Amino acid sequence: MSNRSDYSEGDLRNTGMSLRHDREWDYELDRIIETIEERDAKTVGLQFPEGLKRRGPAVADDLRALAPDDVTFMLSGQPCYGACDLDTYLMRRTDVFVHFGHSPMKDSDKIIYVPLFSNVDPFPIMEESLEELADPAEDPDVGLVTTAQHMNRFDEMVEWLEERDYEVHTRRGDDRLTHEGQVLGCNYASADIDAEQVLYVGGGKFHPLGLAMEHPDKNVVIADPVNNVVTVADTEQFMKQRYASVHKAMDAEKWGVIFCTKIGQGRWEQAQEIVENNDDAYLITMDEVTPDRLRNFAMDAFVNTGCPRITTDDGPQFHKPMLTPGEYEIAVGNEPLDALEFDTFHGTW
Amino acid sequence: MSNRSDYSEGDLRNTGMSLRHDREWDYELDRIIETIEERDAKTVGLQFPEGLKRRGPAVADDLRALAPDDVTFMLSGQPCYGACDLDTYLMRRTDVFVHFGHSPMKDSDKIIYVPLFSNVDPFPIMEESLEELADPAEDPDVGLVTTAQHMNRFDEMVEWLEERDYEVHTRRGDDRLTHEGQVLGCNYASADIDAEQVLYVGGGKFHPLGLAMEHPDKNVVIADPVNNVVTVADTEQFMKQRYASVHKAMDAEKWGVIFCTKIGQGRWEQAQEIVENNDDAYLITMDEVTPDRLRNFAMDAFVNTGCPRITTDDGPQFHKPMLTPGEYEIAVGNEPLDALEFDTFHGTW
Repeated sequence: MSNRSDYSEGDLRNTGMSLRHDREWDYELDRIIETIEERDAKTVGLQFPEGLKRRGPAVADDLRALAPDDVTFMLSGQPCYGACDLDTYLMRRTDVFVHFGHSPMKDSDKIIYVPLFSNVDPFPIMEESLEELADPAEDPDVGLVTTAQHMNRFDEMVEWLEERDYEVHTRRGDDRLTHEGQVLGCNYASADIDAEQVLYVGGGKFHPLGLAMEHPDKNVVIADPVNNVVTVADTEQFMKQRYASVHKAMDAEKWGVIFCTKIGQGRWEQAQEIVENNDDAYLITMDEVTPDRLRNFAMDAFVNTGCPRITTDDGPQFHKPMLTPGEYEIAVGNEPLDALEFDTFHGTW
Repeated sequence: MSNRSDYSEGDLRNTGMSLRHDREWDYELDRIIETIEERDAKTVGLQFPEGLKRRGPAVADDLRALAPDDVTFMLSGQPCYGACDLDTYLMRRTDVFVHFGHSPMKDSDKIIYVPLFSNVDPFPIMEESLEELADPAEDPDVGLVTTAQHMNRFDEMVEWLEERDYEVHTRRGDDRLTHEGQVLGCNYASADIDAEQVLYVGGGKFHPLGLAMEHPDKNVVIADPVNNVVTVADTEQFMKQRYASVHKAMDAEKWGVIFCTKIGQGRWEQAQEIVENNDDAYLITMDEVTPDRLRNFAMDAFVNTGCPRITTDDGPQFHKPMLTPGEYEIAVGNEPLDALEFDTFHGTW
């Protein structure tokens, strides 16, 4: 039975970026130790996403017990929100660099990606989600997407739906994505499929909210095996916030144009083009885009050419309106209001 | 007349790191434009310390008006608290990189350092400070130190004191310092002089507090021409906080050992030595050391081998005690409690 009370709440803070810890993860310690021994590594860097940083010391303990005595393990203390967000300092200065929680955005010999496959069984909640999907006798076409954490069960999920008479549409998206059916917070090209409904299997609302924004014509059903709920994505609250930010920014005289220096978040041409065409725009470079850092600049509004989810999900925390590049074009009058769409990110680096 | 009510307040928040803006600064625009033209630069990076970031756009405007049309100016959005804290990303990717507000920690052809000499007249407040200095007939020996902002008047200050019968002691300190008589927040070697009193001329309490901590045997008189007050440095509150942190950390089981990746703040040997000798210590690397970043790690206490002033001045903002490397040795029982001293930073990078 789906939890109808969870619909339409529009609470963007509860977006699944902060993971619950009642799951078990596969840290693939053997694979890491093998690489350490093969390379005769003396320094090993470990990078965890924010929600899993507190598990870092225990993982380091396990690795120390297995590795030769002269290996030094280092935990990255830099914030991390995706495979776009590698700690390049640590990567360049360690013999082995392990990035946990994401699949490769771009393959590299220097990096061991440990996606942290979840041990949660997705099928009970998929069973419940059938109530929100169209009856296969009426509309058998359904897209299927998930996150890196559940990719190890993806083929089984496809079979499971096929056994229930669905025609499952999947695709790999573009080269920012590693796997068929995978979505990122900034990229939903894997849902560019010929079906009016998409089933998202995974924890939280962060990914399906982006999915529904990017594909407003599709019904996005969320089967969340972590929080054990089925919901249908609702973008209304989200869209209202975006329009409100665009309207507020229309009066801006001085614009700060943010170029993000994170390895997978740079859109230099876009940033430079805005500055070249607006005498009242100033190019500001930074890695972490935070309210504190922007407060120091006397600007009326900001355009963020880095991570679109900082702009859309964290936007209300900033003291001045922050827009995506597409929203900026609307605010300065180059595009009509109905051109507003979700900002996605393509390519690697 | 000195403002006695300002004595002993121990308010570490009002440390002068956030500068007042009623001063005028010399941005040395001509020198910057000359270099841009000489190098035929197309990209110019501008880095300001936190208290002056809001002036960045106006400085960029002035430079845009003077520079060729095809030059792109970029403002660093990275936090900046000293010459130890260069935006190396921006430095490496721009043809000219200008660092405002500090003198060179290490000379480099790549960087134009603009110290931002202040136009404030130091002599009226120095006149008032004579009331706190010993009568030259009794003790003529006085050390004189100041910050980068007032170095352009340093020779005049020496003369001014000599005319009033003082014997002025000055030295250059070590190679972390550019000028004779200069102090940094982390280095007071210029006050290693043969005098029992030191006159600090400059804004705020941040520098003289460190000076008094590092030289507890000397009377540190502060002539502050910015806030127009004379005070005598009082370290009592500061010392109490440090002892409180050390005591709290004595029960710690798990230690996070911070290695700071900022170009001028790395003490690798010190960090590694701690980790090698303590099985319950974990090496954590980061650039900005903030409460938010440390909160994600499940540690009982932290040792910060980076900027000592983050540890001592911002310490109370962190959720767990944070110690300097020397304080750590006390907390784990390797050194006695009375070994507690101010943590200073030497060398360049």
